[in-house]
This record gives sequence, structure tokens and C-alpha cells, in this order.
Amino acid sequence: MSSKTKVNADLQRERDKCSFNITELTNLLDGGAAMTEERRRREETVLKEGIHIEEVPSEYLSHKEKYELAVKKACLLFKLIRRLQEEENTGMESFRAVLGGSLGAAILQDGSPLTLHYVMFIPTLMGQATVEQQAYWIGRAFNLDIIGTYAQTELGHGTFIRGLETTATYDPSTKEFVLHSPTLTAYKWWPGGLAHSANYCIVMAQLYTNGQCHGIHPFVVQLRDEETHMPLPGIKVGEIGAKLGMNGTNNGFLGFEHVRIPREHLLMKNSQVLEDGTYVKSPSSKLTYGTMMFVRVVIVKDMCNYIAKAVTIATRYSAVRRQSQPKPDEPEPQILDYLTQQHKLLVGISTAHAFQLSAEWIWNMYNNVTAELETGDMERLPELHALSCCLKAVTTAEAASVVERCRLACGGHGYMLASNLPLTYGHVTAACTYEGENTVLLLQTARYLVKAWQQAAAGTSLPPTVRYLSRAAAARKPRWDNSVSGLLHGFETLAAGKIALCVANIEKRQKSGLSYEDAWNMTSVQLAEASEAHCRVFILSSYYEETERLVKSSSPELREVMFQLVDLYIVYWALQRIGDLLRFTSISERDIEKLQYWYEDLLTKLRPNAVGLVDAFDLRDEILHSALGAYDGRVYERLMEEALKSPLNAEPVNQSFHKYLKPFMQGKL
Amino acid sequence: MSSKTKVNADLQRERDKCSFNITELTNLLDGGAAMTEERRRREETVLKEGIHIEEVPSEYLSHKEKYELAVKKACLLFKLIRRLQEEENTGMESFRAVLGGSLGAAILQDGSPLTLHYVMFIPTLMGQATVEQQAYWIGRAFNLDIIGTYAQTELGHGTFIRGLETTATYDPSTKEFVLHSPTLTAYKWWPGGLAHSANYCIVMAQLYTNGQCHGIHPFVVQLRDEETHMPLPGIKVGEIGAKLGMNGTNNGFLGFEHVRIPREHLLMKNSQVLEDGTYVKSPSSKLTYGTMMFVRVVIVKDMCNYIAKAVTIATRYSAVRRQSQPKPDEPEPQILDYLTQQHKLLVGISTAHAFQLSAEWIWNMYNNVTAELETGDMERLPELHALSCCLKAVTTAEAASVVERCRLACGGHGYMLASNLPLTYGHVTAACTYEGENTVLLLQTARYLVKAWQQAAAGTSLPPTVRYLSRAAAARKPRWDNSVSGLLHGFETLAAGKIALCVANIEKRQKSGLSYEDAWNMTSVQLAEASEAHCRVFILSSYYEETERLVKSSSPELREVMFQLVDLYIVYWALQRIGDLLRFTSISERDIEKLQYWYEDLLTKLRPNAVGLVDAFDLRDEILHSALGAYDGRVYERLMEEALKSPLNAEPVNQSFHKYLKPFMQGKL
Repeated sequence: MSSKTKVNADLQRERDKCSFNITELTNLLDGGAAMTEERRRREETVLKEGIHIEEVPSEYLSHKEKYELAVKKACLLFKLIRRLQEEENTGMESFRAVLGGSLGAAILQDGSPLTLHYVMFIPTLMGQATVEQQAYWIGRAFNLDIIGTYAQTELGHGTFIRGLETTATYDPSTKEFVLHSPTLTAYKWWPGGLAHSANYCIVMAQLYTNGQCHGIHPFVVQLRDEETHMPLPGIKVGEIGAKLGMNGTNNGFLGFEHVRIPREHLLMKNSQVLEDGTYVKSPSSKLTYGTMMFVRVVIVKDMCNYIAKAVTIATRYSAVRRQSQPKPDEPEPQILDYLTQQHKLLVGISTAHAFQLSAEWIWNMYNNVTAELETGDMERLPELHALSCCLKAVTTAEAASVVERCRLACGGHGYMLASNLPLTYGHVTAACTYEGENTVLLLQTARYLVKAWQQAAAGTSLPPTVRYLSRAAAARKPRWDNSVSGLLHGFETLAAGKIALCVANIEKRQKSGLSYEDAWNMTSVQLAEASEAHCRVFILSSYYEETERLVKSSSPELREVMFQLVDLYIVYWALQRIGDLLRFTSISERDIEKLQYWYEDLLTKLRPNAVGLVDAFDLRDEILHSALGAYDGRVYERLMEEALKSPLNAEPVNQSFHKYLKPFMQGKL
Repeated sequence: MSSKTKVNADLQRERDKCSFNITELTNLLDGGAAMTEERRRREETVLKEGIHIEEVPSEYLSHKEKYELAVKKACLLFKLIRRLQEEENTGMESFRAVLGGSLGAAILQDGSPLTLHYVMFIPTLMGQATVEQQAYWIGRAFNLDIIGTYAQTELGHGTFIRGLETTATYDPSTKEFVLHSPTLTAYKWWPGGLAHSANYCIVMAQLYTNGQCHGIHPFVVQLRDEETHMPLPGIKVGEIGAKLGMNGTNNGFLGFEHVRIPREHLLMKNSQVLEDGTYVKSPSSKLTYGTMMFVRVVIVKDMCNYIAKAVTIATRYSAVRRQSQPKPDEPEPQILDYLTQQHKLLVGISTAHAFQLSAEWIWNMYNNVTAELETGDMERLPELHALSCCLKAVTTAEAASVVERCRLACGGHGYMLASNLPLTYGHVTAACTYEGENTVLLLQTARYLVKAWQQAAAGTSLPPTVRYLSRAAAARKPRWDNSVSGLLHGFETLAAGKIALCVANIEKRQKSGLSYEDAWNMTSVQLAEASEAHCRVFILSSYYEETERLVKSSSPELREVMFQLVDLYIVYWALQRIGDLLRFTSISERDIEKLQYWYEDLLTKLRPNAVGLVDAFDLRDEILHSALGAYDGRVYERLMEEALKSPLNAEPVNQSFHKYLKPFMQGKL
């Protein structure tokens, strides 16, 4: 914390009046004082290397220069991680500690062309290669003799994996697979690092042998010469072009013209092709679910980090910025004093907490289910899958909306890249699409919920996260209770009500002659909403329960503010869902008016702690990377300092004056 | 229309099955066949100059290169406009015809550093200079002897104009004003073209004379030498840095160190400072409202154009893109067949229509009120002001959400700049902040509504756009009527109900001891929502009424689809506002379920006409500028063509391999 520099007086006053101990909250969020210490030490170690420092801020570079900077930064950062792994004698832990969370993202601002090597290439080898294959490949990958990536989506195919077109046809005469892209839409499209960075790649392709297609399988393919880095014959590789964000990730395309690879390059842990072309099937196809769910849980944690960053920036700025004069004889108030501004920011703070605690809850569930899987017990897999789908969809959409609200809450200055809010939005909104498009995911959860509702109606007992459906199926519209626990029950009742209504509508449509698929499609807008309502039940109740558990031994001051935040989040969502509550519960107009007052009262109570709450996220200035959000609140000085870094400001007169403007003015253009 | 190239078969099939005549709708939207002709001819004239064609797409350029390209394009485009003005013997009309609408925006993709010269510098001279001043300045500005801009906002001050810090102190001894920036926060910040393009500027500053401050006044200030373009002594000028979008606008900062300008450089149409320093007050300060409201109406029209662009891109893409396999034996459906996708796109199409018709309605009102103003009648000014505030806020926020929904509806490919959706979002979201921050504007409208409600309650008759408050004040909760006109009445009832509740809450809080200002602030979240509800009444009813008027002589086929769109928009918003309808009207659960079915049925009915509806916006490929949205639907071919334009793809191996990647792999970095 840069506590030595002079802090803006308004911001200092906010800190002085904070009612709780900020460090206590930081420790709570980190999982204990020791964890805070460790995180801070790690941040210090990594940041003192200076990899994050940019001669010219990357926003002024060309697309090509951005990529070159990203390669440089990624190489330096991964070199550092390798050093830390040796020094600390850890494996993937150092890797996760540095790259997970806000630290890695702050250094690799525009994304990294090497991340998929660690996040997808090596893990896929570990998960899908046989022991012999692992012996050959994993060492080479760990030693960086080769750099890999993972290519699944194609130009014409994303979510629907069975639709992929790339073929791998076994030729028993040479004991090789022939990889081919039969059409333009079969070109691999999107994989990070694929364009100009990786020299190897795991390619997902339709496996053909003896004239039969056996579906999608993973193949290791060499793309480039290990010495010269030139693309190998038959390999068409390049980058897909500029994007809304993450222009350092080097997303690429890849096409094959009858490229031959040895039979052994099919990863054969689960399925094999024998020398004569005989296909031997995998014992279970559910084993790959694990990684997918792991990635989704990681995404929820990422969302917390992005939200924490955005609300820290916007809240500190709102304490420094002054505007208007509602009362004639008083100075312009801090914009944080406006209730509408508190409404935009404080809910953001509680959202970060809510997502962190939900993420921890599902993380524990993930570990339990994985442990059960090892013993062959797959009972809770569908439940976990359904939960991870809707949670990924709801948290990414909500994070995007919170980050954008924070940006807009900073007015014009939020539109400047120096605020770091646009870049943050670019990262967050990408998560709405990758690893499962959000609407598709909500409908996957809906399939599970419809089944669960039918089971509940039939009296079958349900797994924990949908057990409320059984209660709701038994008795609807209980007497309304306008407390937090009453609201939580209300959300259960409304989620169950929406699911029940969807089931009824599907049945009604089937009776009127539609096929199940068409009836499902016609009801899918409602289904997606029901899925969101289910997810809301989970987020609200896990936030509430985990907070209760978490603050058991906290100081009374901290407990108070933590529960105010929980209340705020729950009451906020109740007010957002008044229509559903009115439809499916017995809430009254008087109750609603009380909720509105409660909400406004909570904003006022939390207002004095707003800066303390964001300080507790303990995001260093290097991580925030924002002229508006720095710890010292020198907003205007920093905005000017950042402006002066623009290469345009290096010369008083730009060449375009002589080239275009002057001739234009003189009528000589 | 590039009808000669081969069109994607799916897209062609969509066009073949369209139930109405697309040209008929285009003519309707343009205001007649002659207008369509004229627009097309103009587009042809302008586009054949090729100013929009970029050697390297601008997304690959550095920030500095983007500015230089923007100067080049702006000079060429304004030169063309000058030529057209001479050829067609028109004044500002050619200017508006080329720059207004989608055409200018498509050419000046990243914004233009010269726009404010025409949009603010010249109009301010015309509005605020005396006849003598106009004689001197306007000719020079029209001839481009000088290029100007308009500087109002400061680093520390935006919305609250009275808070501006720049001073202009009159020195009677030299008959000069001394311009000064007393603090860093007094620096002008944001004006387009200010950084390196303009050599003159209208500066808004606090006028001091004889030791007294007379508030904000406009001064003409020379910034740069007319020959060398070097900044003049005491002028600190530069650019503010990179932004989320519009990086060609050359937004600048400007500080003064005791800069002296002649007394005559104060624009004195409204107020004067005599030679001895005597201040002579303006007869009316309301005269400047006009421009502000004009700009807001123009913004609403801009929003239509952006929405039309985004839905055209996303709808055509959704007709080409195929995904998943809900029925085992059938091919992957077009994603436009999914109800969730129709839900995202069709509402967007109706929003474009709704905004266009609301914009026309308020445009007529604006012209009437301006005519009344000329006769000294200011009666409808507050009503127009209140309406323009909330309409700007609601339409920009909704446009941003529609554009972003369209982008997300295109999955990963929507994230690519080649889709043109991110750039479009960058323009639209900026409008949420400039020309009045949206929350501030909603609360300005709310002030008017609170007064109007009190007048209604007291039995005073109200102006047309708030007259519904009188009806609602008289009788609440009429019997529910589940038709379009019933819904429109429902929206009036709920808006009135929300305003009444706000008034009651403010009074309650005042009674409990709060000042009016504090009671207002505590109720401001509700007030902003009430203001949105009022605006919704206006948009929904003007959309409905204007459509009725517009389609009177249309073919039955077109009438049918136009009313389906109106119904869709109204039912969509009813479903979005079920909570409010349940609170403030007598709508029942059965009514809601019927609305939901009605909505889903409308989506299905409109589905076959989706492509025809966006074709009717008649946006040329050069204007759409999107690989996903071109008329021929060659989505995948264009994506690949665009990718190959990336400078990174010009070399098979990037230099960073030799510089970083290889040494890193070999452990030699």
C-alpha cells in the first residue's frame, strides 16, 4: 500500500470514519492473516520484477506491437514462475498463485499467448494421454521444448461439438492419421496462442477408421518447425484479427491439407485405434466433464476479482469527485453522497462478496464430487453440472453489468482507458461467451430443473441444491415473512413457481400437437428465466449461509457491516424481482414499500464504510492500474500524467497538419 | 445493394419467404420513395469517392496513426461536402445530409477531429455573437481560415456548469480579458479536435469584471499560430489519451496561464462588457436551451441508426449460422429458429422503429416550440425540456443494451472487431454520458414530474405529454384490459402511481425531519425509475400512434407486420414491468400468462420476416462494415478475408519468436 504518498483529503476522511478494521476484513476474504501475508509477499516478489511496467502504455501501440509486448511479458512472467517453482519446490501451485487472481491478469493486461500451454495443453495431456504418451509429451511440454495450445472450436462451429468438421482418417497402410479441413468452416478458429506462438497443438477432430466415424477425439499435431518456427507443409495457420479485448492472446486459425501424423499422436487414454485400424471404445465418456466444470468454477472466481477491481476504482473516484450544489450555501458534495451513486456502487461491493462465497461453496462441492467420482460414485455429477452451468452464466452476465455500471458511474472519465474500466469490461464480457455461451448454459440447467421438478412432483427425494423444489411442490404461497430468511424462502417459492409454470407450458404445448423439442423451444425464454431464478436461490442462500459461518469469530463491528451487505444484496434482488414475488408468493404492496425503505436505509448505513470496504479488497495500485482508483486518490494529477504519456503529446504539431489540415484549409488538398 | 454477388442460400430463402414488400417499408422509414432515392444517390456520390476505404483496417493502427487517418478522412470528407454545397447550392443541408445518419459515421469510423467546428463552433458563433462579431468570425470559419472547437467541461467539472473554474478577468486598462486556469481541475478536458487540430476555440469561463463574477460566458480564443500551428504562449494544449472508442476525435485538454484576448472576443449577443468594465446583463438566459434540446433530439435519431446497424448484422448472421441438433435426424437449424435468439433480435428491430417514431414526434414538438419561442411564448419549454432529458437517457441506455445484446447474440464472432459490433457499442455507450449524464437527466425530468403531479392533484390542467397524470390522479386502478390500448393505459397508470409514491415518500421524509433536498436524495433511486416509467409511456404511445398514422396507406401485408412489431414492443415492455403493473394496476396472473403466450406467438409470427425487416433498413455494406452482416451473407469467407488483413499475418514468423520465445524455450532469456 503506497501509504507514504500524500492521500487526497476526502479519501483520508473516508478511511478515518470507517467503522470496522479494514485488515480484519482483508484477512477474512483471504482466508486468514497468513494467507494475506502470503499473497502480499507473492505480489511483492512478482511486481518487483517490473514485468508489468510499460515504456509506452499498451493502449498506444499498434495491434502487432501489442502482440509483441504480450509475448515479451508472457515469456518473462513464465520464466519467473519457473524460477519460483524451483525456489519454492512447488509444481502447479506457484503457477496458480501467480496467474490466478488479479495479479497475473494485471501483468498480462491484454492476455497471454502462452496461457493455454499451461491451462489446456498440459492438462489435456495429463487427462487424456496414456502413461507412455505422457512420458513422451509432458516432459517436453514442461521443459518448454515445445509450446502447445488446444484447438476445438471451428469457424462454423462452437457450442455444438458434434458438429465439428475437421477429420482425422486412419490410414492402416502407413499407420498414420490424415488430418484434413474439408471446408472453410472446418478451420479451427479462436484458440489462444495458435496464430504465431505455439508450435504444437492438441486438435479435436472426427476420428474415421475403417470407413466409420467415431466422433471427436484429441490428436497432438506439430504445427511449426521447432528450429525455424516456420509452419509445416499442409498447415494453414494465422491470426483471426483484432478483437474487443485481449489482443495479446494471439487467437489463431488453423486449417489442414491432408496432414499426416503418426498413429501414436491420438491421445489414447480413453479410446484407442489399433495398428490395423480397429477402434476400441472408451469405458466412460463422462470423465471429461471434470475439467469443464473446474474451468467454470475458476471463471466465477475471476468474476469476483474483476468486480472487486471495478468497484474499488469507482468507489474511490466517487469519494474524490465532487459535483453540483443541491443546497445553496454548501460546497459541491462528493458524488458518493448521492443515493443513486450508492445504489450503483454498494450493490457492486456486495456482489463481489456474494460471488466469492458462492464460488467457495461450489468449489467445496466440486472437490467432494470429484472425490466421489474416484470411488465410482457419479450420483451428484448432474447436480454439480447443472449448478456450474447456470452459475457461470449468471455470474458472468452480472459481473459484466456491474463493471459497466461502475464505468458509467465514473462519467466521462470512466470512458478513458486510463480508468482501466473499459479493459476490465473487455475481459469480463468475453466470459459471457467462452466456455459455454450463457443462454445455452441456462437452458442446460433448465433441462435438469424440469426433470427435478417432475421428480419432486412424483415424490422422489432430490439432491440438496434442488431440494427446495420438493418443499414448494408440497405447499405453495406460504404466509409472507418480510425478513431476510423470509425473502430467501420467497426466492425458493418463486423459482419453483417459474419452473412449474414452464413444465405446465411445455405439456400444454405438447397436448396442442407440438413435438417435445418444439414445445421446449417455444418455452425457452421462460426456461432461461427459470434457470436464472434457480441460480439466484443458490447465490443468495450460499452468500447468506457462508457469511454466517465466516464471521462467527469476527469483531462485532465487522459482523455488522457484513450482514448489512448480505441484507443489501438480498433486498436489492427482491426489489429487482418484485414481479415474480408478486406472482408466486403472497408479498403485499405494504411489504414492498417496506423493502424499498429498508434498501435505502441500508445504502445510507453502508455509505460511511464504502471506501473501507473497497480498501479491504487490498488491490495494489499496480493491479488496479487506474488513474481513477489509486490508493492515494490523486485522480486529476494521475489523469494528466497518463495523458502526457500519449505519443501524440510528444510533438506540439502533428505531421497531419502539414500533410492534410493546412492544405485543406488553404483549399489546396 | 450488392445483389450481383452470390448470396448465401439460407439468406436468399429468408428473402424469398418475406411476406411484405421490402422496398415499401424502406420508403416508409425514409419518408417516401423520393427520399429513399435521394438518400441512395447521396450515398452513392459520397461512397464512390472511396474516403472510407482503408489500406490497413484502422483497428490495426497505433493510437497516433488512428488520429492521422482520422484527420485525413475528415479533411477529404469535408472537402467533398464543400464541393457538394457549391454544386447543389445548399448551405448546412448538404452537411447534415452527409454527416447525419449512418453515412458520415461509417466513413469517420473513429470519430472526426473537425466535427465540432461545424457542430459547435459555428453554431455558437451564430447563436451568441453580435452581428459585427458574426461578420468577422463566421466568414473566416466557413472559409476554413480558422478551425475551431468548443471547450466547456473541465478536468474536475462536467455536468454542473456553475462549478467551472476557468476565469476571464477584464482589465479595463488594456481593454483585454485575461484567461486563466487557477488549478489543475480547471483545465478544459474532453473537447473534440482540441488537442492537435483546432487553432481557435470558444472557451466557457467565469467572467469577472470590476471585482464581480457574472457567471459563465463564451470567449473566442486563438490557440495556435495560423501559419505554424504552434501553440501560442500561455496556452497548454494536448490530448487526453486513449479511450474506449472514438479515438479519432482528438479530445484535448487546455490550460491558460494569464492569456490576454481583446474585449471583443467575448461573444456579446446576450451579455456585454463595456470598455470601462461595466457588465450589461442578458435579457433572457433560456435562449441557450434550444441548442441543447436540438442536440438531444439528434442523439435519439443517432440511436435508431446504431440499433438498425446492430440488428441488421446480428439478424443476417443468425440466418446464416447453424448450430446444434435438437431433433436427431434433422440438420443443425439456423440459430434464428431458436426462440431465445428471436427474443434478442426482434425486440431490437421494433426498438429501432419505436425510437425513430418517437424521435419524429419530439422533432415536430421541438419545431413547434421553437416557433412559439420566436413569438415569445415559452409555455411548452419546460415540458419539452423534461421530455428531451428522459428521452435522451432512456434511448441511449436502451440502445446500448440492444447493441450489446446483438453482439452477444453473435457468440464469439461478435467479439471480433470485424463484426463492427464492438465499435458500434463504443459509440452508443458514449452517448449515455455526453450531453448530460443519464441519471442526472432522469432526475431533471423527475423534478418536472413531481411538480406536474402536485398540479394534477390540485386540479390544474397539464400539458399534453403529462396530461395522463390528471386522469390517473382522478381514478386509480381501473378494470384491466389485456389489449394493446389496455396496456398503454396500464403504463400510464403505473407511471402515475410511481410518481405519486415518490411524492408521498418525499413528504413522509420531510415530516420525519429531513430537508427537502435530503428527502429528495433519499428518494432519488425511485425518482429515476419513475422518470423512466414516464418516458416509457411516451415512447410506447408515440410509437403506437405514429405507426397508425404512418401505415394508413400502406399495403395490408406491411400494415400487418408493422402492427406485429408495435404489439411485440409493447408486450415485451409489459412483461419487463410486470412488477409495476401488478403493483399499480389490476392485472391478474391469468392476464400475465396470456401476455407471455402472446409474446411468444408474436416472435414466431415475425420470425419469417426477420431478414426482410432488417433489409428494409437499407444499410449498404460500406455502412454496415461488418463481416457478419453483409448483404450476401458470405460470413465465413469475409471473416477469413478480414483476418488475412492483419499485419501479423503478413509474415509467417513474427520477430518476437527470435527475440523472446526461442530464448525463453531454450532457457536463455
